[in-house]
Amino acid sequence: MGIHHHNHPYMTIHDFNEHSHIGWNNSLKPIAEVESGQVVTYEITEASGGQFTKNSTVEDVKNIDFSKVNPVAGPVYVKGAQPGDTLEVEFLDFKQLDWGWTALIPGFGLLAEDFKDPAIKIFDLKKRNTTEFLDGIDLFLKPFPGTVGVALPEVGDFSIVPPRKNGGNMDIRHLTKGAKLYLPVWVEGALFSIGDTHAAQGDGEVCGTAIEASMEATVRFKLHKGKTIAEPRYEIPGPPTPEADSRGYFVTTGHGEDIFKASQNAIRYMIEHLVSEYRMTEEEAYMLCSISVDLRISEIVNSPNSLVSAFLPKSIFR
Amino acid sequence: MGIHHHNHPYMTIHDFNEHSHIGWNNSLKPIAEVESGQVVTYEITEASGGQFTKNSTVEDVKNIDFSKVNPVAGPVYVKGAQPGDTLEVEFLDFKQLDWGWTALIPGFGLLAEDFKDPAIKIFDLKKRNTTEFLDGIDLFLKPFPGTVGVALPEVGDFSIVPPRKNGGNMDIRHLTKGAKLYLPVWVEGALFSIGDTHAAQGDGEVCGTAIEASMEATVRFKLHKGKTIAEPRYEIPGPPTPEADSRGYFVTTGHGEDIFKASQNAIRYMIEHLVSEYRMTEEEAYMLCSISVDLRISEIVNSPNSLVSAFLPKSIFR
Repeated sequence: MGIHHHNHPYMTIHDFNEHSHIGWNNSLKPIAEVESGQVVTYEITEASGGQFTKNSTVEDVKNIDFSKVNPVAGPVYVKGAQPGDTLEVEFLDFKQLDWGWTALIPGFGLLAEDFKDPAIKIFDLKKRNTTEFLDGIDLFLKPFPGTVGVALPEVGDFSIVPPRKNGGNMDIRHLTKGAKLYLPVWVEGALFSIGDTHAAQGDGEVCGTAIEASMEATVRFKLHKGKTIAEPRYEIPGPPTPEADSRGYFVTTGHGEDIFKASQNAIRYMIEHLVSEYRMTEEEAYMLCSISVDLRISEIVNSPNSLVSAFLPKSIFR
Repeated sequence: MGIHHHNHPYMTIHDFNEHSHIGWNNSLKPIAEVESGQVVTYEITEASGGQFTKNSTVEDVKNIDFSKVNPVAGPVYVKGAQPGDTLEVEFLDFKQLDWGWTALIPGFGLLAEDFKDPAIKIFDLKKRNTTEFLDGIDLFLKPFPGTVGVALPEVGDFSIVPPRKNGGNMDIRHLTKGAKLYLPVWVEGALFSIGDTHAAQGDGEVCGTAIEASMEATVRFKLHKGKTIAEPRYEIPGPPTPEADSRGYFVTTGHGEDIFKASQNAIRYMIEHLVSEYRMTEEEAYMLCSISVDLRISEIVNSPNSLVSAFLPKSIFR
C-alpha cells in the first residue's frame, strides 16, 4: 500500500507506477479520497514515465514509447465535489530530484518543421535555485506541475496531450509554490490528477519540453461549493518572474495574421540571436527558448496582424 | 517653422499637424534630417488626431472620422541609413498632457462581436504615476508610443492600422522610458515616424485602445550599419512590470486550437470576474482589461490546443 495517511489532514502518495494513469477517463477508480482542506504530497515521476535516466542519450529519445508518456498520479476523489463546483489546488511545496531533461522530439514543438532530428540534454539539479545550461549560462529553477486536472464529463478515453476545460496538460509555468489553481468540477468527486513536473520553463514551452524532472509535489485542496467556472483560473501571490527580471530582457517579435506563425517567427529570430551572440548550436538555442523565454501577446487587435514578443531574461548570462 | 534645432544633437519637432502623416508611404517628403546619435523630442497628438477632447462623449466616438485616426510625426530621414541596416531608437523620456481617453469603437477590438455599442472614458492624468479608473481602482501610468516605424520598401500607401516588418502600430507596452527598439531599415534614410502615444496599456490592448494621450516623446537615434534583422526587436533594462507586480495576479485562461479565440475566452472570463467581484459594467471591465491586463501564451505546443493566460494585477485595487 503506497498511500500513507499520517495525522489527518496529511497524506502522501508513494509508488507512482501503481497510482498513475495515462490520459483522462472518468471511469478510472480513485486511488484515494480526500476532504476539502486536505494536504497531499505526491511523489511524481517525470514525463517520460521513467523511460529516461540521467544517463540517457539521443538513442532513448528515438526509442521513446509514446503510450507511456506523461503519466499523472491519481485520480483522487474529493468528497462532496459535484459538477458546477470549483476545486482549488494550492501549491505548497516542490522538491525536485537531482537531475532533469529537455528533449527535441521529432514532430513535436512550435518549430517541428525546422527541427527534424531528436536531441536531449540532461541537467544537474542538485543546486536548488539554478542549473547550468552551458558554461556562463545559468537558468533559474522554479518547479511546477505541467499537468494538473480533473476528469472530463464526457465518457471515454481522452489523450493527455492537449489541455481542455478540465485543465490537464496546461504547462502554466506560474503554478509554482504559493500559487492557487481553480479547476471547474465536471464529475462527482472531481477526480483530480497531477504530474509532468517541470523544474523550469518559459511561457509557451516552445520546443515541447521543459526541464522535465521527478519531484515531490505538496498541494492543499479546497472545495468551493456552488462556484462555477468554465475554464481554469489561477492566482499568484507576487511578481511572476522576480528571479529573472533584474537585468531586463532582450526581445524578438513576430507579426502576422496567425498568432501561431507569428510566435514561430519570434522564436526563430531568438534562436538566430542566441546562435550569433553566444556559443551554442541551433538545437541548444531552441531548447533554451523552451525553458527560459516567455511569449507575450503584444497586440491582438490591429487587424489583420497580431504581434507576439519573445522575452529572453538577460540575467541568465553570467 | 516648427522644427527647432537647439544645440546639435538636440531637436524638437513642434506643430504636430504640419509634421504628421496618416499611413505609410515611402515617397513622403522628410520633415527633418538627423544623424546617428541625434536626440529628438516630438510633440505628439493622441490617436484621434485631436478629434477627442477631455470633454468628449460617446457622440464623438460615433462621429469619429477614421481617415484622421492614428497620425504619426515624421518621416525623419536618418543620414547614412541604407536597406539592410538597423535603426536603434532609445526612448529617453515621455511627458504626457493632463488627460487621456479609452474608447470602445464598434467593429474594433478582440471582442467586437460582444460589444456593439460605442463608449468612451476620459482619464485625469495630472498625477504622473497613477490614474483613478473607478473609486478604489488606481491604474499605473507607464507611457510609451503605440506606433513606431520606418518606411516600407514597397511603393504606395499602406494603412497605419496593422504592424508590419517596418514596425508601425505594434502597441508594445514595454517600449517605455529606458527601452531600446531596433527597426530594420528598408529604404534609404529609414524615414522614421512615431505617434499614437499611450499612458497605460496591457499586453494585447484587447479593446483596441489604450489610455490614449498626447505627450512629448524624446528619443535618441543610433544607426547600426550592416546589422540586418527581419522584424523589430527591443530591449528593456529591468523588470517588465515592477510597478504592478507586488501583490500578484489573478489570472483567467482560455484554451483552444485558435489562439485568437482562446484569448477571447480568457478575456471574457476576466470581464465576468471583474463585473462579479467589483462594482463595474461589462464595458468598464473590457476597457480595464485593455489598459491593465496582460496576455501571455502559457503553452503553444500541446497540439491541437494552445492555452492563453490573462494577468490582472491585484495592486490596482486599493
